Amino acid sequence: MVEEVKTDYIDVPEQGLFFVPLGGVGEIGMNFYLYACDDQWLAVDCGVGFAGDRFPGIDMLMPDPSFAEKIAPKLKGMVITHAHEDHIGAVAAFWPVLRCPVYVSTFAAEMLETRLDEAGLLGRVDVNVFESGDLLELKPFEIETVAMNHSIPEACSLLIKTRYGSVFHTGDWRFDEDPVVGRPVDLKAMKELKSEKIMALIGDSTNVFVEGDIPSETAVKDSLTELFAGYKGKRLIVTCFASNVGRIESIAEAAEKNGRTVCLLGRSLWRVEGAGRAAGYFRGINVFLTEEEALECEQDKVLYLCTGCQGEPRAALANISYGTGAVKPVKGDVVVFSSRVIPGNEQAIANIQNRFIAKGIEVVTVKDALVHVSGHCGRKDMEKLYGFLKPEIAVPVHGEAAHLFEHADLAKACGVEKTVILKDGDVLRLDGSPEIVGEVKTGVLARDRKQIIPLNAGILKQRRRMIDDGTVVATVVLDKKGGVVGTVQFSAVGFIEADSPVMEQMDEAVKQALSELSLPDLKENDQAVFDTVKSAVRHVVVETHGRRPLVDVHLVRV
Amino acid sequence: MVEEVKTDYIDVPEQGLFFVPLGGVGEIGMNFYLYACDDQWLAVDCGVGFAGDRFPGIDMLMPDPSFAEKIAPKLKGMVITHAHEDHIGAVAAFWPVLRCPVYVSTFAAEMLETRLDEAGLLGRVDVNVFESGDLLELKPFEIETVAMNHSIPEACSLLIKTRYGSVFHTGDWRFDEDPVVGRPVDLKAMKELKSEKIMALIGDSTNVFVEGDIPSETAVKDSLTELFAGYKGKRLIVTCFASNVGRIESIAEAAEKNGRTVCLLGRSLWRVEGAGRAAGYFRGINVFLTEEEALECEQDKVLYLCTGCQGEPRAALANISYGTGAVKPVKGDVVVFSSRVIPGNEQAIANIQNRFIAKGIEVVTVKDALVHVSGHCGRKDMEKLYGFLKPEIAVPVHGEAAHLFEHADLAKACGVEKTVILKDGDVLRLDGSPEIVGEVKTGVLARDRKQIIPLNAGILKQRRRMIDDGTVVATVVLDKKGGVVGTVQFSAVGFIEADSPVMEQMDEAVKQALSELSLPDLKENDQAVFDTVKSAVRHVVVETHGRRPLVDVHLVRV
Repeated sequence: MVEEVKTDYIDVPEQGLFFVPLGGVGEIGMNFYLYACDDQWLAVDCGVGFAGDRFPGIDMLMPDPSFAEKIAPKLKGMVITHAHEDHIGAVAAFWPVLRCPVYVSTFAAEMLETRLDEAGLLGRVDVNVFESGDLLELKPFEIETVAMNHSIPEACSLLIKTRYGSVFHTGDWRFDEDPVVGRPVDLKAMKELKSEKIMALIGDSTNVFVEGDIPSETAVKDSLTELFAGYKGKRLIVTCFASNVGRIESIAEAAEKNGRTVCLLGRSLWRVEGAGRAAGYFRGINVFLTEEEALECEQDKVLYLCTGCQGEPRAALANISYGTGAVKPVKGDVVVFSSRVIPGNEQAIANIQNRFIAKGIEVVTVKDALVHVSGHCGRKDMEKLYGFLKPEIAVPVHGEAAHLFEHADLAKACGVEKTVILKDGDVLRLDGSPEIVGEVKTGVLARDRKQIIPLNAGILKQRRRMIDDGTVVATVVLDKKGGVVGTVQFSAVGFIEADSPVMEQMDEAVKQALSELSLPDLKENDQAVFDTVKSAVRHVVVETHGRRPLVDVHLVRV
Repeated sequence: MVEEVKTDYIDVPEQGLFFVPLGGVGEIGMNFYLYACDDQWLAVDCGVGFAGDRFPGIDMLMPDPSFAEKIAPKLKGMVITHAHEDHIGAVAAFWPVLRCPVYVSTFAAEMLETRLDEAGLLGRVDVNVFESGDLLELKPFEIETVAMNHSIPEACSLLIKTRYGSVFHTGDWRFDEDPVVGRPVDLKAMKELKSEKIMALIGDSTNVFVEGDIPSETAVKDSLTELFAGYKGKRLIVTCFASNVGRIESIAEAAEKNGRTVCLLGRSLWRVEGAGRAAGYFRGINVFLTEEEALECEQDKVLYLCTGCQGEPRAALANISYGTGAVKPVKGDVVVFSSRVIPGNEQAIANIQNRFIAKGIEVVTVKDALVHVSGHCGRKDMEKLYGFLKPEIAVPVHGEAAHLFEHADLAKACGVEKTVILKDGDVLRLDGSPEIVGEVKTGVLARDRKQIIPLNAGILKQRRRMIDDGTVVATVVLDKKGGVVGTVQFSAVGFIEADSPVMEQMDEAVKQALSELSLPDLKENDQAVFDTVKSAVRHVVVETHGRRPLVDVHLVRV
């Protein structure tokens, strides 16, 4: 992941076909891709990334949109391949500087609406809804939307046609011969795309290390049906990714076949349910129960479907595991994780599972039964796609470096002549021989609640240092003669208790240090006073706490 | 993991044989076990745990020793099974309140010496060195030390004999038929232990989910030798757990067979090297090179052995990956992770690997070749041990809840009649029918640099809240008439830049709010002033930053 904002800034030539990833290459998340054809621009996806533990207090990362802003007047539109947050999550944040038409599927439009509403943009954004198979005319681009399978409804690939040739941008995809929502990909039509002569394939690398067949979603549904049948008389608590409409349908159908009604727990599940129903999903499935309704039912006739499959500490499943929710965990309950572990979340998930197990509750995961499949293509699907499309160039995206290199090797093994490994910000010329011709400004921004700030912002550096070293604010009152008035006041929130004897030690140390300062400095040289106080405070805290804190001084002269 | 310090406190009966885990049950780490025989006590191991990401600024966790402190006068001794930090890391911290003799192996004594030195305890602690096979007489306990294999030298199990019967405390262990340091476990002697009639087995659960054979360390050495042979002409950078003396020997021998000399990078490797040589290891291996020496050699005749296999951001391997060390990463180099991934470290390790891969450097892990084996017993070894010892009772320890329950099931399947799942603090009576007869005070302490504080300490709660919500310190100067003098000074380290216009907004908001306070309150009621300032500051920051900060007020009356 790019950590520092780059300052170099190279223009993209006016003639030719170019691919410029602003996010999504070298990381999983923050997908934001630009195409230029004769200096007319197209954006594909506009997503966020998860911050992980490295950036305290930061939930979301975003690609730096400043280059996109620069070409915004020439941006013909933004096409969203599907409604996952890492593909759609930054639309509301960036639209005010891009102001281009947005093209989304019906379901994605429903999901986007909430975000636009939250951002006060509802009705202002030119949102265009397409169905897979539609042709989007964004001259000089002509874009054919191609239905694919994925772990969210209506994911599609884009066949982007230009006067230089066609690019197949896969988005997130897999082939599912028996999906629960949507149809199996039309492989015949897919093979025929080849007649288009595909210049380049820009493709998903997520599961490039996964060998073998990935079962269909219907196989998961059947497996869940069988699994639930084994737990008659017990209460079932299931968790899955909230946006996985197909999985929610699988779980609901499996529950109903076992005489259970599904209760949804967690805001994001209800949000997806609303968007899903509006887009025509969940038909033929009973109305989901609220928590209040479910608690009045016989508990072995209910299935609680919860948010929190990644161990999120405030989600519904975590609340149940702690016993802080209305649904109290009881020995004999069964908890099913119909999900995978996203790298980095292993311990958080294990902690929740262990809390259940310690209470005598059985925990079922992918290790025990077919309760989850990935929405991303494994090697077999990738090989099949390369076989169908036979692109001249393969450009792996949607992956960390390890995935990109492995994907390039796979493409070569499939007979693709030219493969290119990029990093975010690279300008790749696609017409003629592929060549990286420049680099545009890129970087990562952090959504710090209401603010969007660069990752190298001073406050984030301070925040990280503060966690290691602590912080002390000292208020010193000096009279006209340079004497300290009263007691020096200190705050060391999160590091030294307010009633600690260390406060007194710091007071003495500061007074002692100031008494050694010259009178002119004491009376007029604020900087000298600051430096003296900082040094005295640090000296004490290093001794008492083993930390070298950030020290701020409030000087009051009376 | 226990999060709150318990306050209940139940005495252990004076007659009988009891097992009281203070740490290590329900978590991996913090092993600290007590045995009582007729109110005479024995401690086994005294380790720390890793804090993970949940406790900002905290590196190490420790079990609460207060119950051990209570029985300290009756503590006959503390026996350390091996020198891993999660078994020995808290000895120096707790010895001052326990003051009992400590029994360790030669290598563990060398490792302990550094820690005691750092704590100013060298020469004060009664350290007794034993060799495996030795009998320790700590009446009413007679302890036979039984050599086992593990990923550190001289690990041993303890056969603890009492007038009520014998307990086999495994420590961390595996059977290795061909280890690189130490000897294969004497299975014949192990079988004969059974004649002792083993009342209970207190056993390692770490790898209870691992099926199949775990290869020997010699197989790893051979595999490394072959692997290195394939990289002639390239620079080799290898990382492993620093305390794994056997692995260091394996790597060094494999390197030497390929005409390479090993250079150690990282303090903990050099520390282990020192302790290892003092205890008689690394014989027949060339002297390790320093970084300066290695950089002067031909780079394909060197092997850099680095700390940092868990992605630790300041370790030698991370420095190389960033290019901030003296060893600069170059395309064509090969990096070998001769280690496993400890849960929770996945993303940190992947980040380092991706940095290498992005530079065209090959990364080899356990997924690619036999470059690591675990030091813990898998199911096969566990079944073998239960077959040899046939204990009446099995008490799984050294595991999270999932491990403990699985271990109990395995023991039952091996014919053990009684299994007991404990939690830290439980008092288990072993004589007669096993029964949990009480619970003693337990809990988790955090080593906050120089301080040891409870996990529920106010400053840790503040610290966690601060990261979410931020902190603001405001200094308000009021004159005798209750008027605000000058500008209100603010510090919001890590959250609001010092030159932010928000500072002005807060100043205005505070002055406005104070102007609405009654004159008597302004002149005399400090609390009213505090509350008013806090509320005004919060109001601004919620609006501007979406955070509800912790606010401290320094009030100066002039």
